[in-house]
Amino acid sequence: MRKEENIIFISAVQMKSEFVRILTELGFTGSKADRCAGIFTLNSLEGVYSHGVNRFPRFVTNIKEGYIVPEAEPSLVNRAGSVEQWNGNLGPGPLNASFSTERAMEIASENGIGLVALGNTNHWMRGGTYGWQAARKGFVFIGWTNTEANMPAWGAKDFRIGNNPLVLAVPYENEAVVLDFAMSQFSYGKMELFQLEGKRLPYPGGFSINGELTDNPGEILETRRALPVGYWKGSGLSILLDVLAAVLSGGLSTVEITEKKAEYALSQVFIAISLGKLSNSQNIQKTISRIIRDLKDSVPAENGNEIRYPGENTVKVREENKRNGIPVNKDLWERILML
Amino acid sequence: MRKEENIIFISAVQMKSEFVRILTELGFTGSKADRCAGIFTLNSLEGVYSHGVNRFPRFVTNIKEGYIVPEAEPSLVNRAGSVEQWNGNLGPGPLNASFSTERAMEIASENGIGLVALGNTNHWMRGGTYGWQAARKGFVFIGWTNTEANMPAWGAKDFRIGNNPLVLAVPYENEAVVLDFAMSQFSYGKMELFQLEGKRLPYPGGFSINGELTDNPGEILETRRALPVGYWKGSGLSILLDVLAAVLSGGLSTVEITEKKAEYALSQVFIAISLGKLSNSQNIQKTISRIIRDLKDSVPAENGNEIRYPGENTVKVREENKRNGIPVNKDLWERILML
Repeated sequence: MRKEENIIFISAVQMKSEFVRILTELGFTGSKADRCAGIFTLNSLEGVYSHGVNRFPRFVTNIKEGYIVPEAEPSLVNRAGSVEQWNGNLGPGPLNASFSTERAMEIASENGIGLVALGNTNHWMRGGTYGWQAARKGFVFIGWTNTEANMPAWGAKDFRIGNNPLVLAVPYENEAVVLDFAMSQFSYGKMELFQLEGKRLPYPGGFSINGELTDNPGEILETRRALPVGYWKGSGLSILLDVLAAVLSGGLSTVEITEKKAEYALSQVFIAISLGKLSNSQNIQKTISRIIRDLKDSVPAENGNEIRYPGENTVKVREENKRNGIPVNKDLWERILML
Repeated sequence: MRKEENIIFISAVQMKSEFVRILTELGFTGSKADRCAGIFTLNSLEGVYSHGVNRFPRFVTNIKEGYIVPEAEPSLVNRAGSVEQWNGNLGPGPLNASFSTERAMEIASENGIGLVALGNTNHWMRGGTYGWQAARKGFVFIGWTNTEANMPAWGAKDFRIGNNPLVLAVPYENEAVVLDFAMSQFSYGKMELFQLEGKRLPYPGGFSINGELTDNPGEILETRRALPVGYWKGSGLSILLDVLAAVLSGGLSTVEITEKKAEYALSQVFIAISLGKLSNSQNIQKTISRIIRDLKDSVPAENGNEIRYPGENTVKVREENKRNGIPVNKDLWERILML
């Protein structure tokens, strides 16, 4: 949230009930409206507004345009041992992803590890949601999605690769360690915010017209040459994640998604690993605590700077937003009330 | 190889037979000497000299110091469905890793997916080797290792996280698409080479004494603040890979490895996924070709610049080195002949 914005605070209960109302009017059955509204609310409660409340109107538009089919359910295409291929039938992305996570956990409960590859689905919003879902039930989670092309490959100028978010999660005490990151260093949305505020990016995030790395968001928005994380390394990781998502699910790859007139029919992978039957299952929390304590003992680069583990901030923001309500742009909230 | 170096060219056959001779004298049995020498030779043949011939003398030293136990074999600790935990018993890292890859493929052949978590092992040299091993037999491969701490976490000054290489691979025609990358943007070894040659890094690779990003290798070698790929993102990925390697294997984490006086007793994860029983198994190569063709159609940022897919260059270098011999520093090769 930007400071100068006109912000109001909405409780999670109120937000969810508005979302339920709107989704029900769009044809979601009771349980599906509840679950889908729950995910959008949770994403907002945990501070990922861009894939929560701020994204909700666009989700509604995508439903009205027919890209997202409210009543569609995932269907099993093929089972090969602990690997299952599912067709998302263009149902709501968050519901398909949440279902696939659950199914991967069921397989893992039986076989130690379960992989669900999901084709023909829609944007899952915040990938971390599924990491939290699995980790809070005691599973390791590894998952990713492909996207339409929104970044040039390393050494190129035009969009050919997706920012393909990758999620890794592991249970930690009553919470989890959850990493959720896209392969672009900064999203275009974030760069637009920096530009609006007349600020430089904290670190170089793309290329100028002269082909040089720059932290000037305006220049990057002009060239559209966003920086992949780790230069050539993140470009390679984006390619592999797309190949694996398309190959394992039998669904579309980034190039095929990009040919469509909107971003739909994505491919995703959900891997769950059961921890309960490992030989060291009694010591796992001790192992993780030890790693986190060591991180916290780091010498900070700047005085007073705290070193955080992935997911730590999510817990803080969740508690804060539970206490104070979820911050929402007033105009946006009024638009949502009228949906 | 640097141009001003005194380079000779050694055939793969000759290189391997020298390695076999040395390993046999160190107590490797016939088959193990052959396989281990084969991996060091292959890594060199495929252009990863730093983890092939250039590293071989250090491998020998580590054996003589007792950190690597030539006769040790991995032993099964625990089986939980398609997840197996193995103890590497401090055997030679490349042999343990190659064994674990094979075992993960065996499990995947039966159950679709197999995960082998290996604790108490040694440096696997080039991670990509195991990606190629699995992918050329028709499996998807996902694997990683932890390391001693060799990089500060994001926002910190002192070493707390490892560069924890991650490998993803998928079969592609008679070859493979293989991504193999460490979580540091540049290794210290590479930065030392740039410094020796009086060159700047091609892109910022760490922090100066003033806490600013720099492409001056000398400054980074002084602060020892190497840049994680993607700034905070690669730092997070390093942490998660370490947590998962230690948790799944029941072996040591980076903080525990770092407490030892040398880098040994590492933790690694090997996941293989079978492609043969997928519903789309007949179309997989077509899917990958399509993605690669699209990448190749990119508009290059600089004229004449070819966009490469991960692993493409490996095939080229392998063919070149098969034709011309493997380039080796003459002094190094003479030292090896005298080992």
